[in-house]
Amino acid sequence: MPDLLLKNAMVLQIDKDGKRAHLLHDHDVLISGSRIETVQPTGQTDPSHFREVIDVGGRLVMPGLINTHAHVPMVIFRGLAEDVTIDKWFNDYMWPLESNLQAEDVYWGMQLGLAEMIRAGVTSVADHYFYMDEAAQAVEKAGTRALLGWAIFGSQGTPMIERTREFVTRWQGAANGRIRTWLAPHAPYTCDDDFLRASVAAARQLGVGIHIHVAETMDQTQASVAKRGMTPLQVLQETGILDVPTILAHVCGALPQDIELMAKHPVGIAHAPKTYLKLAMDIAPVIAFREAGIPVGLATDGAVSNNTLDLWESLRLLAMMQKDRAHTPEVMTIPEVLYVATRESARVYGLPDDLGAVEPGYLADLIVVDLSGVHHQPLHSVTASLVYNMQPGDVQTVIVDGKAIMRDRALLTLDESEIVIQVRASMARLAQRTPDRRIQSYNP
Amino acid sequence: MPDLLLKNAMVLQIDKDGKRAHLLHDHDVLISGSRIETVQPTGQTDPSHFREVIDVGGRLVMPGLINTHAHVPMVIFRGLAEDVTIDKWFNDYMWPLESNLQAEDVYWGMQLGLAEMIRAGVTSVADHYFYMDEAAQAVEKAGTRALLGWAIFGSQGTPMIERTREFVTRWQGAANGRIRTWLAPHAPYTCDDDFLRASVAAARQLGVGIHIHVAETMDQTQASVAKRGMTPLQVLQETGILDVPTILAHVCGALPQDIELMAKHPVGIAHAPKTYLKLAMDIAPVIAFREAGIPVGLATDGAVSNNTLDLWESLRLLAMMQKDRAHTPEVMTIPEVLYVATRESARVYGLPDDLGAVEPGYLADLIVVDLSGVHHQPLHSVTASLVYNMQPGDVQTVIVDGKAIMRDRALLTLDESEIVIQVRASMARLAQRTPDRRIQSYNP
Repeated sequence: MPDLLLKNAMVLQIDKDGKRAHLLHDHDVLISGSRIETVQPTGQTDPSHFREVIDVGGRLVMPGLINTHAHVPMVIFRGLAEDVTIDKWFNDYMWPLESNLQAEDVYWGMQLGLAEMIRAGVTSVADHYFYMDEAAQAVEKAGTRALLGWAIFGSQGTPMIERTREFVTRWQGAANGRIRTWLAPHAPYTCDDDFLRASVAAARQLGVGIHIHVAETMDQTQASVAKRGMTPLQVLQETGILDVPTILAHVCGALPQDIELMAKHPVGIAHAPKTYLKLAMDIAPVIAFREAGIPVGLATDGAVSNNTLDLWESLRLLAMMQKDRAHTPEVMTIPEVLYVATRESARVYGLPDDLGAVEPGYLADLIVVDLSGVHHQPLHSVTASLVYNMQPGDVQTVIVDGKAIMRDRALLTLDESEIVIQVRASMARLAQRTPDRRIQSYNP
Repeated sequence: MPDLLLKNAMVLQIDKDGKRAHLLHDHDVLISGSRIETVQPTGQTDPSHFREVIDVGGRLVMPGLINTHAHVPMVIFRGLAEDVTIDKWFNDYMWPLESNLQAEDVYWGMQLGLAEMIRAGVTSVADHYFYMDEAAQAVEKAGTRALLGWAIFGSQGTPMIERTREFVTRWQGAANGRIRTWLAPHAPYTCDDDFLRASVAAARQLGVGIHIHVAETMDQTQASVAKRGMTPLQVLQETGILDVPTILAHVCGALPQDIELMAKHPVGIAHAPKTYLKLAMDIAPVIAFREAGIPVGLATDGAVSNNTLDLWESLRLLAMMQKDRAHTPEVMTIPEVLYVATRESARVYGLPDDLGAVEPGYLADLIVVDLSGVHHQPLHSVTASLVYNMQPGDVQTVIVDGKAIMRDRALLTLDESEIVIQVRASMARLAQRTPDRRIQSYNP
């Protein structure tokens, strides 16, 4: 007996070659366990055969969004570092603030950020932060999907790699497979080569990938070249990082040889344009990446730079900033950016055959979008509205792994009042900055 | 007897010099007729003395947003011209589509766009479109404030100036002063010099200003220099346009001498960054404008380029794109952009002493913003949240001219279901494009 029927849906289909987005009207989506069984015209199945039926009433069903790089629990610090250079952002704000961090802050902060993402239709996140056992507990509770990496710095020494290796083992495949775990050395400018090599050795042994920041700005690239004659990406190649499945966050400072290099390795790039604009980091050359065959995934980054976890805004900014940089509106068309937001982000996330499409066999991570709001009307183009008009509040229902976790805007797994009370109780402690007390120094 | 009391508010204050934004907690706003009488600590007045009391419950009260350049009824065409160059956007899409336009389309389209703007906290709009009697009727009904200009082209001849002069007279000061009217010749590339001069003469005679597009791209500026040895702004100077109060839309193609020129005249610039990105027009140099003393106002432009009327998104993009272009996050700080969104937009709109502040004597065009959503939490910085986290759905209540027109997300003046039904009924007719049938040709 199939478990869940989504009835009377308009279903978004994105072709595998990324050239075309189209709609199936009056269709049903049949779900068995955690996967989509069939997508077929309405009326061919008997709703009484299903454990649960959701009548979508003609609304849009599409894949849940995939956030390929975030620091979700960082929501607890949002609004605390504004209008400052990237050096100050790290040294005077973020890293001093993070010295206040306790395991419990991550537990509640992760829940708060997951609540925000569920409300915005984000069903999966590749997260990169600290105290990740607590983050995993929050994901387990929220019912979402996550690829978790415990961020570590070279200064913590190799015992820290051992600790995160244990974390990876502890949570790999947990929550019915919703949780996957990777290693997450912070960046080449905060991890020396031996530390990176040791991370690769651990990743190989565990059979997992690596999630890392690299070449966040062209300044970082130039500093690396000046200091050691190699770009940050060449450092990652040299230390073996690029040989395991890798999520590379940002890469705004990519030189042409870096793009060639990345194209030869199993990497994906996480693209978080709001951070790049807010911190004036320059925009990563997404068109060049994709032309070289390197997959690009949508990302928010953390909420101290973003300042939200609204992936629809990242989607718009991806399209608009590439048009801006290319000096023509004809690039990064609507079907292309919807492809990036779905199938291509799934590839960066490491599950290209399981996520990013409403097709039989794919995981049932689906969202129901209500396009009846006046900001979408009249609806001449559903796909244009998805890219340029969406507000998170248009997401009505969210299903992950075959189970509804938000229905008609009500969260079914998380207690938002309790979460907000818990986070607010720590606000004053979290906002303190003590001179010269910080978890790292930014000096790439 | 005062009319309306907003009780228990957190009130946003933006200093007149634009350097500081701060908050008054636990304050009341007392409103008499259409104006703010007093802003004072809660508890000093007896609520029973007021005709109406709204307990704001600690939420934020701030000035309603002012959209300094739009084509509101264009919402009826949204989603119909995507991923195309500006030439094609005009010649193959917008101007053919607008040949389908009938007066009634404007009546319903204006209401649809006003509904969207009210829901987003936009209380005033400087609108530039066709069939403006119908637009004015919609504004009268909606209860919002508007500065209306009937868009005209040189090819229509001077009788059209006469017709719009009559429109200006007919509606000037209507709806208790909520409606003001200006002249609106389209642009120097669609109006010859004699037509522009005749527009100036009419404006002087009527004692009104002019709302016009100019130097929308650097290509337009270069084409004007090549064709006639003058920049588009020099054409406006030469024809006298700059000598009357003027809203200049876009000015992305400003040369240094144009900035000097504008600084000597009573002009304001309307800035609509989403259009510039979507059409790859390059971003107007807002920092240079403001350093020269030229006021800049926030704008959405029309919904066929934007594709919404969400002015919060324009606010974020203003800040982020100027940081991007200046290669530093330290410019266009949060207090500065909030100043642009309020007092400076009021100046561009022509009502600097009446709009843009919650202070005694100002018009009671106010919005109540609910910052309790998880995307704002924890609320370390109200002002950062206003710039970077706002969703239109956070606007809870909207007051214009002392009267509530949206309360707890329910529109009190417009019938959204009826509006959407009326607009949808015309969708197929509106979307038609007939070869070589267009209202103008784009060839600047």
